[in-house]
Amino acid sequence: MFDMKLKIINGPNLNLLGKREPKIYGSTTFENYFEKLKTLFPEIELYYFQSNIEGEIINEIQNSENSYDGIILNAAGYTHTSVSIADAVKAVDIAVVEVHISNIFSREEFRHVSLIAPNANGSIIGFGLDSYRLAIESYINR
Amino acid sequence: MFDMKLKIINGPNLNLLGKREPKIYGSTTFENYFEKLKTLFPEIELYYFQSNIEGEIINEIQNSENSYDGIILNAAGYTHTSVSIADAVKAVDIAVVEVHISNIFSREEFRHVSLIAPNANGSIIGFGLDSYRLAIESYINR
Amino acid sequence: MFDMKLKIINGPNLNLLGKREPKIYGSTTFENYFEKLKTLFPEIELYYFQSNIEGEIINEIQNSENSYDGIILNAAGYTHTSVSIADAVKAVDIAVVEVHISNIFSREEFRHVSLIAPNANGSIIGFGLDSYRLAIESYINR
Amino acid sequence: MFDMKLKIINGPNLNLLGKREPKIYGSTTFENYFEKLKTLFPEIELYYFQSNIEGEIINEIQNSENSYDGIILNAAGYTHTSVSIADAVKAVDIAVVEVHISNIFSREEFRHVSLIAPNANGSIIGFGLDSYRLAIESYINR
Amino acid sequence: MFDMKLKIINGPNLNLLGKREPKIYGSTTFENYFEKLKTLFPEIELYYFQSNIEGEIINEIQNSENSYDGIILNAAGYTHTSVSIADAVKAVDIAVVEVHISNIFSREEFRHVSLIAPNANGSIIGFGLDSYRLAIESYINR
Amino acid sequence: MFDMKLKIINGPNLNLLGKREPKIYGSTTFENYFEKLKTLFPEIELYYFQSNIEGEIINEIQNSENSYDGIILNAAGYTHTSVSIADAVKAVDIAVVEVHISNIFSREEFRHVSLIAPNANGSIIGFGLDSYRLAIESYINR
Amino acid sequence: MFDMKLKIINGPNLNLLGKREPKIYGSTTFENYFEKLKTLFPEIELYYFQSNIEGEIINEIQNSENSYDGIILNAAGYTHTSVSIADAVKAVDIAVVEVHISNIFSREEFRHVSLIAPNANGSIIGFGLDSYRLAIESYINR
Amino acid sequence: MFDMKLKIINGPNLNLLGKREPKIYGSTTFENYFEKLKTLFPEIELYYFQSNIEGEIINEIQNSENSYDGIILNAAGYTHTSVSIADAVKAVDIAVVEVHISNIFSREEFRHVSLIAPNANGSIIGFGLDSYRLAIESYINR
Amino acid sequence: MFDMKLKIINGPNLNLLGKREPKIYGSTTFENYFEKLKTLFPEIELYYFQSNIEGEIINEIQNSENSYDGIILNAAGYTHTSVSIADAVKAVDIAVVEVHISNIFSREEFRHVSLIAPNANGSIIGFGLDSYRLAIESYINR
Amino acid sequence: MFDMKLKIINGPNLNLLGKREPKIYGSTTFENYFEKLKTLFPEIELYYFQSNIEGEIINEIQNSENSYDGIILNAAGYTHTSVSIADAVKAVDIAVVEVHISNIFSREEFRHVSLIAPNANGSIIGFGLDSYRLAIESYINR
Amino acid sequence: MFDMKLKIINGPNLNLLGKREPKIYGSTTFENYFEKLKTLFPEIELYYFQSNIEGEIINEIQNSENSYDGIILNAAGYTHTSVSIADAVKAVDIAVVEVHISNIFSREEFRHVSLIAPNANGSIIGFGLDSYRLAIESYINR
Amino acid sequence: MFDMKLKIINGPNLNLLGKREPKIYGSTTFENYFEKLKTLFPEIELYYFQSNIEGEIINEIQNSENSYDGIILNAAGYTHTSVSIADAVKAVDIAVVEVHISNIFSREEFRHVSLIAPNANGSIIGFGLDSYRLAIESYINR
Repeated sequence: MFDMKLKIINGPNLNLLGKREPKIYGSTTFENYFEKLKTLFPEIELYYFQSNIEGEIINEIQNSENSYDGIILNAAGYTHTSVSIADAVKAVDIAVVEVHISNIFSREEFRHVSLIAPNANGSIIGFGLDSYRLAIESYINR
Repeated sequence: MFDMKLKIINGPNLNLLGKREPKIYGSTTFENYFEKLKTLFPEIELYYFQSNIEGEIINEIQNSENSYDGIILNAAGYTHTSVSIADAVKAVDIAVVEVHISNIFSREEFRHVSLIAPNANGSIIGFGLDSYRLAIESYINR
Repeated sequence: MFDMKLKIINGPNLNLLGKREPKIYGSTTFENYFEKLKTLFPEIELYYFQSNIEGEIINEIQNSENSYDGIILNAAGYTHTSVSIADAVKAVDIAVVEVHISNIFSREEFRHVSLIAPNANGSIIGFGLDSYRLAIESYINR
Repeated sequence: MFDMKLKIINGPNLNLLGKREPKIYGSTTFENYFEKLKTLFPEIELYYFQSNIEGEIINEIQNSENSYDGIILNAAGYTHTSVSIADAVKAVDIAVVEVHISNIFSREEFRHVSLIAPNANGSIIGFGLDSYRLAIESYINR
Repeated sequence: MFDMKLKIINGPNLNLLGKREPKIYGSTTFENYFEKLKTLFPEIELYYFQSNIEGEIINEIQNSENSYDGIILNAAGYTHTSVSIADAVKAVDIAVVEVHISNIFSREEFRHVSLIAPNANGSIIGFGLDSYRLAIESYINR
Repeated sequence: MFDMKLKIINGPNLNLLGKREPKIYGSTTFENYFEKLKTLFPEIELYYFQSNIEGEIINEIQNSENSYDGIILNAAGYTHTSVSIADAVKAVDIAVVEVHISNIFSREEFRHVSLIAPNANGSIIGFGLDSYRLAIESYINR
Repeated sequence: MFDMKLKIINGPNLNLLGKREPKIYGSTTFENYFEKLKTLFPEIELYYFQSNIEGEIINEIQNSENSYDGIILNAAGYTHTSVSIADAVKAVDIAVVEVHISNIFSREEFRHVSLIAPNANGSIIGFGLDSYRLAIESYINR
Repeated sequence: MFDMKLKIINGPNLNLLGKREPKIYGSTTFENYFEKLKTLFPEIELYYFQSNIEGEIINEIQNSENSYDGIILNAAGYTHTSVSIADAVKAVDIAVVEVHISNIFSREEFRHVSLIAPNANGSIIGFGLDSYRLAIESYINR
Repeated sequence: MFDMKLKIINGPNLNLLGKREPKIYGSTTFENYFEKLKTLFPEIELYYFQSNIEGEIINEIQNSENSYDGIILNAAGYTHTSVSIADAVKAVDIAVVEVHISNIFSREEFRHVSLIAPNANGSIIGFGLDSYRLAIESYINR
Repeated sequence: MFDMKLKIINGPNLNLLGKREPKIYGSTTFENYFEKLKTLFPEIELYYFQSNIEGEIINEIQNSENSYDGIILNAAGYTHTSVSIADAVKAVDIAVVEVHISNIFSREEFRHVSLIAPNANGSIIGFGLDSYRLAIESYINR
Repeated sequence: MFDMKLKIINGPNLNLLGKREPKIYGSTTFENYFEKLKTLFPEIELYYFQSNIEGEIINEIQNSENSYDGIILNAAGYTHTSVSIADAVKAVDIAVVEVHISNIFSREEFRHVSLIAPNANGSIIGFGLDSYRLAIESYINR
Repeated sequence: MFDMKLKIINGPNLNLLGKREPKIYGSTTFENYFEKLKTLFPEIELYYFQSNIEGEIINEIQNSENSYDGIILNAAGYTHTSVSIADAVKAVDIAVVEVHISNIFSREEFRHVSLIAPNANGSIIGFGLDSYRLAIESYINR
């Protein structure tokens, strides 16, 4: 039995994690890291979804509402351009925590703005894959 | 027999109409409202399409050209970001009327700009769901 | 006996409608069109006012409050520059619908911003003179 | 006999003071407040002018020059748009104090800029109707 | 008998010419200068109009169309803010030459932009009152 | 016994008042002017603090809360740059009136913006040292 | 046997090529042109993919990596808005050449910026369909 | 014996936490919360410093280098204005994690930019006081 | 014997006048027009210089100082980019009148700014080649 | 006998090609590369011109009109600043293809804008010296 | 006996010189370099002050006025943000030379603007520690 | 025999030094000052070049590379507009020190940006002609 049910939603190109640009994104695949997360938080049921398609991410956010306690969202490139994902985050009645693997503030200027952040519960940025662990931690009441 | 055939295309998160944020979008689902529209305009054949995926909206616009007399388009969040939907509106040889339920000019600044408006026949903004009725009215020659 | 009483307020240079720049504004004078409107809506008492003077438009808006059910306002060039007309629209306790004959979004950039729109009930833009008919329609409960 | 003669010039929509939007502008009409001002400053001859028309405000400023010791100007919405009123303030050889009832700096961004302020002797902003009393005080040498 | 009929339209505060700020505008009143112009061009019928009210300038431009061969327009402060005067210049079927007494390009930055210039036949800027003489010259075919 | 207790807080370089740049700031030291203020308002207990250090001004604002009826704040150069002083003004439960000796709107462009003004009760700008007297007047109920 | 294997990826609305807006895009369908390209370069294996969906274009770019020698990408409207396609181009270990049929620099201002260009090997812009031939040429070592 | 030694540095007005603006900052004082943190992480030695003075924060950052394993920095209002604190973060050879209690991205626009973030290891924003717990978690290797 | 000596300096591409883009620049070569000018003003000695090289225009301006009564300068494309020509105009002790053949304000936005205008005596813009005649007129005292 | 005659015009500092900054521009001198081009295209007569002087480039463009079938222009640093070269490209009745050796879109922001591109037939950017070959290819009808 | 007395004022983080980021700031501590400067200029009395606190730098500038012949100011990070230090430089009646060790123009964009420079006698930028020697040289009359 | 060989390159209008605008540039001609420099630095061989032509300055920079130890460059008006001179400075393998006679930061805003500075070794600004002496000093190792 799980205490909580969280959904991780990853956006475009994050399926390449651990396979490309290791200087920015590290060399662990998300699938491997996801197994580690499940081990670290045995009391939490974790689900993982990835898509390169903006509208599928919106669908997934909308579908989480009654069945999950929270979403952990890394919208990747859509973070900076998608009014529609930001609208979905605002419209659903479920907590959403934004994460980023890299420090978006030390990269190109267009990555400094997140359209999603104003609608999220909080943002965790720049800790590598560890950002996901901290996001799960944020859902645990200690 | 119908006098005219119009297609309503709704963009991302409008499937949540009547279910979320009633202060901004009211409490009627679009499906219910669509039935009311069909009653109000018995002489017009109305078709309704919704998608959260930008490219599917483009597909739907392209596919309307020979079989419809006009499109009523509420691109929602894509209104402010989608050059590609705006290009589709410009490319097809069919009238497109832009509608918005809320007054986009009294919301966040990034909602004040519509990339679609310059290519549309006209825009109807801020009348709640009634914006769709007015859009249909705009196709009727009186 | 009329069901409703609406006032149309036209701003600067709209007295030239039908006389100048037919490519943008058509070839019907507003006086002729106004007669057509009265025929189309026999149940509504329509009043028409035009002025080139910003302050007289403000006066007319202020004076409408108790005697009219709504205003249809085409502030023309003042749309983009008049904080004071926008303030008047906000201050009076009467519905105001903004109309534009041409598609202001496909003209010069300074015409893309309406100071009035955030304070209006709704906006109808780009349907030629038909924008006025749609604005009247917006006041009718169907 | 009066020691001094001051003219208060109020711009657009200030004739609605005490009648509209009491949260921003309070519930006292300016006429009532004006009587209170005359009682508070019996040694000063006070004159009051209001117009919604930009050019009439310019006329009134120009006509004050030889017959008044100073102007108290609340140009309201024209504050942010009227180069011409600002030019008039600069051109006349008479002191002008700018007043605002509300705190224009905590409202919409376009209200943060006053074209008149650079040409005024000083500005008094945000004290409600009391801004006018302070403006009169500024003319008294203590 | 006159060969040509030209109307000079002066905008806000230009009635103070020769009375205020002589460093910028010189010390001749426009009335005196107007007499000199009539002497210089005996073959041309000259008419002179001044107003501080934006809408009256629009009225005057509209009324010139059939009875004059051209307009010489110094819109003063409205030059930089009036979309509506610019629209009037564009709408009427009569030549309009823009003049400015001072060099608007060496003054405050907001004076560097003329909304009227794009719609005028030409602009003459910075020659003092002599700008009016050159504007009349521009109407003479040599 | 005093009716009221007010604290004047002066920011950086205002200790030089009367000693430097007399064209902008006059030739009276603030200490001398402060004595005059105490004479003008015998019923009010006045306290005066000056610091060139941003954080000390924040400290002083925080420490005023229970012991004073109001603050008169001239943050000088920090007016345009200090989010932190503006936050302090907003956080404390005490009235704050902003004053400026010179007309900040007719000086360099970066002085036209006050970060403090949106959080202040009101602003008094450009009356020389007399701005402080008017600020005290604003606390007196007449 | 082919010397090289290249994939052409076309973005939104390019399926309408030769069918719409011939003034901008010419009157040849891409399918016909593609046959011509195959004839021109018999030594190169050419593959062609088109989608209106941003995420499918990302998928296609990711899937090209081991099986192709290069990509020729015309992202059309997504060129100016898609951080995510640009990220995909950067992430994959395969050469990408950007092409545009029309001269994007002589069209609307928002088309002057390509998010993809900084990550591409090179860009070929404005030669009509011939841009594709030149892109193929760029892969041939002469 | 402690496994790790961390220093929390709080910037201006954070000494008011729990005392002011509870809607934004909650009703717990930082001192109370700090005790809770020490209980939650008994294996970590925690030190706490607060100052309203920008330069003292710089001093404290510089002094942490050899004696601490990491800094948790909430620079509050200085976050958005202090190049100098950002330089200090960059100059010292010690990890710095940035935290914010409120969601800075849903507040005023000037709070959307952090000068410190590009130089920090990571940022944790918007979880209320829990942001500090998550920051400590980020230093623990799990 | 001449009363006055004026130098006309034409900038880049004006040697093509009458040969290229007749819709913008007319079909008269400047050489032909120059002969007409000499006939129109027999009492004035006119000299004509053209160069495509920015620095040669600067040389020519510098060399005019003692031998000419005035310069008529059409810097063409350098008008909008050359700080150095503008500096030359300011440095020399000789009157310079700026002319433009086309209405630069109705062309591309980058042509709306003249770096030279603030340093010129006056500007004459948009009268076709007749701009040169008016510039000569401006030097004649009538 | 040649089929075609093309002129290559290189702008400032391109005479240093192969001698400076090999990381950006490679290590081949343009003279050597030019020989290779002549070998590759024996049917085309190629001419090569280089100058560091903006006006000489304008001269060379103007002089190409009747004697060449096309120009290949690399304006180097003038690409981003020269309205006058762009005007020359527009004025002459000859095809101009713009080339750049480096990817100007991945360098400093001021290099992202080309004033010449809107007037060119097409642009080829970022292929190293091979950009010139592709430009010649664009002139060949295949 | 000294001929001249100069004060060097160093701003935030410059106490770390020679200890941090040697690529930007070199590896000599300022204390060592200061000894070298005293040896190089035996005829000049040199004093050195450093603080991380903005207001203490202002204090030090104010206190220099009667006892020193000049100030050499490296305000470091405050260079780009401190209106108040710039005001102090302007207010005191003593020469101030601005120095920077690194080339601020080749670093982040926010470092390209110096608020202090307009009020300084001159600026010396980018020569490493040698900038201080050149600043002293600037005070010597040769 | 000389220890070092330096070339001074002066840009447009600097040949007028000592002849024009003495308030900004002083009353000494550069030729006279150059003689003084030679006397002050007998151990250094100094060469002086001036041109008003941007491309000749580029030529001169390129030609200095093997025969000089350094360049002292005052590009005057080209400082703010010439990408091409800046490129030349970056391309040559020789030290370049930028000098300005006047304080460019206290003049017009467009003079606040130097395109050359990021590529120069250092910049010396605002010391009058003495800026050149300090630039020579910067080449001497003390």
